[in-house]
Amino acid sequence: MGDHLPEGFCFSAVTAGIKASGRPDLALIEAPEGANAAAVFTKNRVVAAPLQVGRAFLARSRGRVRAVIVNSGNANCATGKAGRLACERVCREAAKLLDADTRQIFPSSTGIIGVPFPADKIIASLAALFESRQASESGLRQFAEAIMTTDTRAKLASARVGVGKKEFSVAGVAKGAGMIHPQLATMLVYVLTDLSAAPAELRRTLRGVCDETFNCISVDGDTSTNDTVLLLASGASGVRLRDSGVREKFESALLAVCQSLAEQIVADGEGVQHVVRLHIEEAKSRAEALRVAKAIAHSLLVKTAFAGADPNWGRILAAVGACGVAIRPERVDISIGSQRVFRRGAVCGFDEKQAHLELSQPRCDVRVVLRRGRSGLRFLTTDLTAEYVRINADYST
Amino acid sequence: MGDHLPEGFCFSAVTAGIKASGRPDLALIEAPEGANAAAVFTKNRVVAAPLQVGRAFLARSRGRVRAVIVNSGNANCATGKAGRLACERVCREAAKLLDADTRQIFPSSTGIIGVPFPADKIIASLAALFESRQASESGLRQFAEAIMTTDTRAKLASARVGVGKKEFSVAGVAKGAGMIHPQLATMLVYVLTDLSAAPAELRRTLRGVCDETFNCISVDGDTSTNDTVLLLASGASGVRLRDSGVREKFESALLAVCQSLAEQIVADGEGVQHVVRLHIEEAKSRAEALRVAKAIAHSLLVKTAFAGADPNWGRILAAVGACGVAIRPERVDISIGSQRVFRRGAVCGFDEKQAHLELSQPRCDVRVVLRRGRSGLRFLTTDLTAEYVRINADYST
Repeated sequence: MGDHLPEGFCFSAVTAGIKASGRPDLALIEAPEGANAAAVFTKNRVVAAPLQVGRAFLARSRGRVRAVIVNSGNANCATGKAGRLACERVCREAAKLLDADTRQIFPSSTGIIGVPFPADKIIASLAALFESRQASESGLRQFAEAIMTTDTRAKLASARVGVGKKEFSVAGVAKGAGMIHPQLATMLVYVLTDLSAAPAELRRTLRGVCDETFNCISVDGDTSTNDTVLLLASGASGVRLRDSGVREKFESALLAVCQSLAEQIVADGEGVQHVVRLHIEEAKSRAEALRVAKAIAHSLLVKTAFAGADPNWGRILAAVGACGVAIRPERVDISIGSQRVFRRGAVCGFDEKQAHLELSQPRCDVRVVLRRGRSGLRFLTTDLTAEYVRINADYST
Repeated sequence: MGDHLPEGFCFSAVTAGIKASGRPDLALIEAPEGANAAAVFTKNRVVAAPLQVGRAFLARSRGRVRAVIVNSGNANCATGKAGRLACERVCREAAKLLDADTRQIFPSSTGIIGVPFPADKIIASLAALFESRQASESGLRQFAEAIMTTDTRAKLASARVGVGKKEFSVAGVAKGAGMIHPQLATMLVYVLTDLSAAPAELRRTLRGVCDETFNCISVDGDTSTNDTVLLLASGASGVRLRDSGVREKFESALLAVCQSLAEQIVADGEGVQHVVRLHIEEAKSRAEALRVAKAIAHSLLVKTAFAGADPNWGRILAAVGACGVAIRPERVDISIGSQRVFRRGAVCGFDEKQAHLELSQPRCDVRVVLRRGRSGLRFLTTDLTAEYVRINADYST
């Protein structure tokens, strides 16, 4: 990633003793004064304490963020009022160390649900966390590793964009591997840029990009109580979002970074062997295309067929037929890999061995043409393996 | 089942050579002249040929049915116009043998999707099928066995009801074990009664009962292209549905038979170790309760937790929170087996070993109280085991 690190940010990670493994479990991003932010949160009605606190702080500070404090090992979810107070206490102590307003601290938690939040452990480690911060790629990597739970690898992506003689960067970090693990939760994404932008501009751009990336992936169809995407702009590059031609460049850099992180999350899904890129085409609307994509992505029979690299177009067709969109089977086409396997209501002659071979690759494309309109989208999903079931069933309380 | 066999019906089964196993794959129910019927079909937009033909015949005959012809081994789905013509040809030949109107033949198919329908094999076996018919319990059992595909056991249920000095019976047969298997489809249910009833009366009663039984079960959340429930009334008992007090008795007998068949289907689900009875209580409406039940029943994380007999209330809560119903977590209760584990937004102290033990039984109850209204329902679902994935993935084309 090297020179793609956006300017103005510092990073660090320490071990606060929340994870039983003894690995780093407390991480920091510090932003310079005047940094602006926008966030997107889970749509689950069950919302963890840090999201409630972070959303309220972001509103009251009008999108100003000086530090992001993330712990792994405890989700601070279903912990009631005590959980919210504990979260606020951590933010207050962090704000003191930075000499900042408490409402400019953005908290995140990921880990076990329903266990009291270990605020004391975290507060005792804050001084060490702030002391060790550094504006370097290795600092960002330490941050990325400290927020992992069941992830098998850290997830980073970045882009650098030239604007005349100036440049700006976008860098992102993510964690997530299956939406919720044995009482361990969550996708967390932090995207940083040294562009200068107002919170409202960031919000608008982030929403659009999330719709095309993080809202178009599914490992198991479950939605965590802690999902958070934060976009943070330091302004240190001297390039302004409102300058001529910058908006398009920023949007495409942000899209590329988020797309890469989304793919990394899906590929690291629990027990995942194959990532399948669904292309839904010629739908009446984007909402309709999304509905069809989700029906395919959530069908156990389709997902198990993917696990066996079985070009089972019948299961895909049945999933589409049952999703509530008034498709006409006699107008539908389905392609698997490079071949069309189903055309306008009937099976085509196709090379099953070839289709099996293509589905056996780590990545494969599946295309469904509805012939109902002009909308479409790309959606990332995975197979469902016996390994996923083992990971999620072999948990004994 | 013995004396619970409704009067007026004959049954038989033969081997037509459709199934590779050489097992019986063609089955018949003959009804007396004047028998009335009502049917409920899959809501999938992809509808197999026999459902298109059967629905049209039933409308044109105004609910008269003289024979039900079912084959297993081929679903006659995604077979285009040729499939519909082949199905109609079978009905025409069967009608000749009975000296009946073609539109009084009700066809069903279950088996592989997208393979040309072997009408010639079936027609060549019709004479033998009609010759061997008998009005006996063993005939009905042969019928039940011949319609099986991936089922591990035949599914039958019956009830006898007294009305003054008279009696009537209700008997049902079903097949289904996971909604669609490696290109093999379908739940098929045939319920017979010797009550006398008009098609419209049968339709009304059947719809209500289906909503409470077959529409409240889920093994894998997939909806087959061939699902069919047929209710057939011979009138041979001399008891009329419109006689005083009969409607209530018939409804409760039909409900009991369908409930038993629904439970048998779920318990025979592919790889199923545990059947879980979900009780959704205090919802605003039945539709809302159904939405909550389906969200729980379709969550991979909940289903894998059931497989591990893990009393993981956090996954249940997260599934409910994400389903689109505006629940307030602080008003929700969750019980697993005999214990309340989550009460008004926070975990209760509960005996985890006891909860694990109860979830390890073949049947266990899970109760979710929403405190939003007065509606509720019972929904049957299953765990998701590595065995299910193996059954559905280890299919190689």
